[in-house]
Amino acid sequence: MKIGFIGLGNMGNPMCRNLLKNGHTLKVYDVVPELVRKLKDQGCEVATSAADCARGVEIVVTMLPSSPHVRAVYMNSLGVLESVPAGTPLIDCSTIDPLTSREVAFEAKAKGCPMLDAPVSGGVGGAEAGTLTFMVGGEAADFERMKPVLQHMGKNIVHCGGSGNGQVAKICNNMMLAIEMIATSEGMTLAARLGMDPKIFASIVNTSSGRCWSSDTYNPYPGVLEGVPASRGYSGGFGSDLMLKDLTLVTEAAKAAKQPVMMGALAQQIYQKHSMDGNGPKDFSSVILQYMKP
Amino acid sequence: MKIGFIGLGNMGNPMCRNLLKNGHTLKVYDVVPELVRKLKDQGCEVATSAADCARGVEIVVTMLPSSPHVRAVYMNSLGVLESVPAGTPLIDCSTIDPLTSREVAFEAKAKGCPMLDAPVSGGVGGAEAGTLTFMVGGEAADFERMKPVLQHMGKNIVHCGGSGNGQVAKICNNMMLAIEMIATSEGMTLAARLGMDPKIFASIVNTSSGRCWSSDTYNPYPGVLEGVPASRGYSGGFGSDLMLKDLTLVTEAAKAAKQPVMMGALAQQIYQKHSMDGNGPKDFSSVILQYMKP
Amino acid sequence: MKIGFIGLGNMGNPMCRNLLKNGHTLKVYDVVPELVRKLKDQGCEVATSAADCARGVEIVVTMLPSSPHVRAVYMNSLGVLESVPAGTPLIDCSTIDPLTSREVAFEAKAKGCPMLDAPVSGGVGGAEAGTLTFMVGGEAADFERMKPVLQHMGKNIVHCGGSGNGQVAKICNNMMLAIEMIATSEGMTLAARLGMDPKIFASIVNTSSGRCWSSDTYNPYPGVLEGVPASRGYSGGFGSDLMLKDLTLVTEAAKAAKQPVMMGALAQQIYQKHSMDGNGPKDFSSVILQYMKP
Amino acid sequence: MKIGFIGLGNMGNPMCRNLLKNGHTLKVYDVVPELVRKLKDQGCEVATSAADCARGVEIVVTMLPSSPHVRAVYMNSLGVLESVPAGTPLIDCSTIDPLTSREVAFEAKAKGCPMLDAPVSGGVGGAEAGTLTFMVGGEAADFERMKPVLQHMGKNIVHCGGSGNGQVAKICNNMMLAIEMIATSEGMTLAARLGMDPKIFASIVNTSSGRCWSSDTYNPYPGVLEGVPASRGYSGGFGSDLMLKDLTLVTEAAKAAKQPVMMGALAQQIYQKHSMDGNGPKDFSSVILQYMKP
Repeated sequence: MKIGFIGLGNMGNPMCRNLLKNGHTLKVYDVVPELVRKLKDQGCEVATSAADCARGVEIVVTMLPSSPHVRAVYMNSLGVLESVPAGTPLIDCSTIDPLTSREVAFEAKAKGCPMLDAPVSGGVGGAEAGTLTFMVGGEAADFERMKPVLQHMGKNIVHCGGSGNGQVAKICNNMMLAIEMIATSEGMTLAARLGMDPKIFASIVNTSSGRCWSSDTYNPYPGVLEGVPASRGYSGGFGSDLMLKDLTLVTEAAKAAKQPVMMGALAQQIYQKHSMDGNGPKDFSSVILQYMKP
Repeated sequence: MKIGFIGLGNMGNPMCRNLLKNGHTLKVYDVVPELVRKLKDQGCEVATSAADCARGVEIVVTMLPSSPHVRAVYMNSLGVLESVPAGTPLIDCSTIDPLTSREVAFEAKAKGCPMLDAPVSGGVGGAEAGTLTFMVGGEAADFERMKPVLQHMGKNIVHCGGSGNGQVAKICNNMMLAIEMIATSEGMTLAARLGMDPKIFASIVNTSSGRCWSSDTYNPYPGVLEGVPASRGYSGGFGSDLMLKDLTLVTEAAKAAKQPVMMGALAQQIYQKHSMDGNGPKDFSSVILQYMKP
Repeated sequence: MKIGFIGLGNMGNPMCRNLLKNGHTLKVYDVVPELVRKLKDQGCEVATSAADCARGVEIVVTMLPSSPHVRAVYMNSLGVLESVPAGTPLIDCSTIDPLTSREVAFEAKAKGCPMLDAPVSGGVGGAEAGTLTFMVGGEAADFERMKPVLQHMGKNIVHCGGSGNGQVAKICNNMMLAIEMIATSEGMTLAARLGMDPKIFASIVNTSSGRCWSSDTYNPYPGVLEGVPASRGYSGGFGSDLMLKDLTLVTEAAKAAKQPVMMGALAQQIYQKHSMDGNGPKDFSSVILQYMKP
Repeated sequence: MKIGFIGLGNMGNPMCRNLLKNGHTLKVYDVVPELVRKLKDQGCEVATSAADCARGVEIVVTMLPSSPHVRAVYMNSLGVLESVPAGTPLIDCSTIDPLTSREVAFEAKAKGCPMLDAPVSGGVGGAEAGTLTFMVGGEAADFERMKPVLQHMGKNIVHCGGSGNGQVAKICNNMMLAIEMIATSEGMTLAARLGMDPKIFASIVNTSSGRCWSSDTYNPYPGVLEGVPASRGYSGGFGSDLMLKDLTLVTEAAKAAKQPVMMGALAQQIYQKHSMDGNGPKDFSSVILQYMKP
């Protein structure tokens, strides 16, 4: 299949390489020339603009850093919607706010193009290994039609309902994750401070009503689990600044929806403080350091 | 075995009946005469004081509502420690603060009596069915020795380490549980408000990094799971006022230990507000109502 | 002086009338025809677009509801900057985020137009009485030059430093105000619940270290002060939904600046909940109802 | 007048010296012998127990660190109530929880002794200078009768209503103070981060609706006011750990009263974290450091 791919950063680059590996032909575009060059060397055709990248391809995939980027790449002059032939399917893999996803999909539909929002989880590692999870919003028929392309970049392809719901699923899940990671950090440090062995406490919680992914699979207390960031100084994993970005996105979506999220707002603040203290690049489970003596 | 049992309320009564069923003989005591009468009718010997109840028995079990009650029953004049023969093992099943547990156990040891703190989870239903979980603090040898008695009242008997650690495990687990229940409430209501089907959202979270016991086993959103309080108007289950009691206990233990628990303190406040709004008797998953239009 | 005035809503209308009263001539514009009609009846010239309104006048004043409106009115095609002659001074009285203010002022300067941001406090009552406070950002010389026009609409005209600082002063002040109003609500209700007369408590706080404008001038507890919204069912005053708007603005500015505001974020959430409960139109001191039994 | 004084620490010692200066005779007691010695050297009679200190004097004054101490000094065997002659007036100047104050006053009344709770503000400096503020709970006639003695140790003697209300006034005021200090810290640091001069921002807030004692009299931002702890590295003043003690007291009183205090609970947590980070001895305005890059 001939695929137009826009956005060739840390995530986009390995996603493209997996598409190539699976036999697709690529036409690529990015505003940063050196990101383009890497893929040109692997035999990809190079487009001169987003609009150009959307011409003469069977599907367009985008992977961009934020809502304004998505809006610009699709809707500006020289953008995708200016040139894309009616009927070409579109997939946006960026993590952005659901309202922007819906607005862009609405404009795409007006041009006759079915569009999916398909944000990912799994990080750069998952992108390289082709094991990403895609949370997908859009019509069921469109989902079935475009699913094979997503399967060449990821492992779990989940349909979340109509347009924008891929974003909703991702940011609401990550809000719960952040709160639960902080809950686990508070529970583990308090139990330890009250004189209990952290490993024994974790084993009890994990068979009890307090268990969560953060306690049983990604425990933030050093030495409780092997092979997690907590056991290697919080290197690798999912950076605190990336979690902060998602928390900022979800709390702004909540404001726009006029929905209170007391704990979500506090989690955003705690990660903001954690980042200000210089921990932005560390794995997000390092938030437990906020509860330990310096 | 002849067992002295003090504290015959909602929990103590069915615990006694299970001990009788398993062939033990009981000598019982409570300050409320009618609670005593019920067990007298079932053939239990009636003691005239806590001190009397601790005489002529092979083990003493207590189930009391708060730290001051435990302190009084063991350490006042006419209390257990005044009369109990050296060597008699003691088990306190009350949920109280860990420091009081340790202090009473220390005094008991000075009288030559090994003592366990063994708070339970599972509620009145679990007490009646004999399926309680006991989280037990105390020395390993004492734990092994007294375990058979606990097994006649419950199913999971977990050793949590030294004296007081049964309490630590229980209140720290419940703090995590309360935070995660609120996290789930915020995630579910926000996803729904942003246009996503709550059942689909729950199914995605439950196979993703946001999953927790509150989302996959006890989901607070009406209609997502069958057989949980959320699907029967939040009746039955574990009352919000009981969760508030545990949150009050754990935040006070954190203050005494000089350990911050930002989310735990906010959870305590949210349950306090929930109770003030008249929801104290409803199951604790009803906290999701704080996030829905009245 | 001939003044172009854009944005003729609740605030803009009385501001125009005060300018007329003080001898100015007006050319006015709004997208809502009936808002224009009211001022036409009072002898104002009517413009056909924002661009038209900025032609043939000695100064342009705008009063708009949000950042996207300001951006559109100044920078879109048919906007102010398209037609305004170099040298015409510009004043934007909207409350918006400081970064947008700075960006628009930068573009204005590029066209040779000095620009001030001058958000107001004092509400519709202050606009009618001509007693508004203007918090003004921009260069000192520009401030001095445009001050006389502001004095015809308000009483206190405060220079806050460079471009955007009018916005910074307003939203940071209002964040403090919201937190202090909630602090006063918590202090007053707790003191009352603990058995103290609210009037006596207020009189002590107001001569002590807990005093603030919310306690000594605008006390939220019914019956403590006369002539405030709390003593007339929270009617009139500054609506909770307006406070929520400012809190949303300030917490988003804080996110963009990567600055934690723990209490500010919690205040935003408490007003969000208060609004969800149906109290949006009531004066913002009604937040005390969140602390009283329903 | 012959006065029995119990509790001779940092505060009690200078209070005694002011009583001596004003012509009173003292009989003193403390469990720490060296604290007693200092006053013996100044000619005070030394008592052998609290009970002894309450005999042969015209009034008893106590200044103790916590509720358990007050309970013990008044109600234990060898305590004040065991020996005090009916009719002797009692004043407790300790800052403790209001319920304990009321309970002790009730017992005192049963012995025929009128009792006041009279916690102070003003710190060691105020105790030495004799400029303390006393917030007094008790009956009006008792207040009038004992006021002259308080006036020999302080300047502002405020009647707050019935028994326990001195405590209520003090801890509720201090809760408001802590929240407002954090509000000021957030407002000042955010305004500065958004590019505004802190002095100009403070001057605007202080004539606007955000003003409070923490902003206009005790501003936490370095360099804004002279002669405050913020301008001398946060030395002197009212220690963060003392504020933490009062916040702990007030949040526990709120729990007992079943009254939510969202902001109060968050303030307690922020001071707990501030203390854990090693800032306990610094003035409480140093909490602004939580909002600055390390």
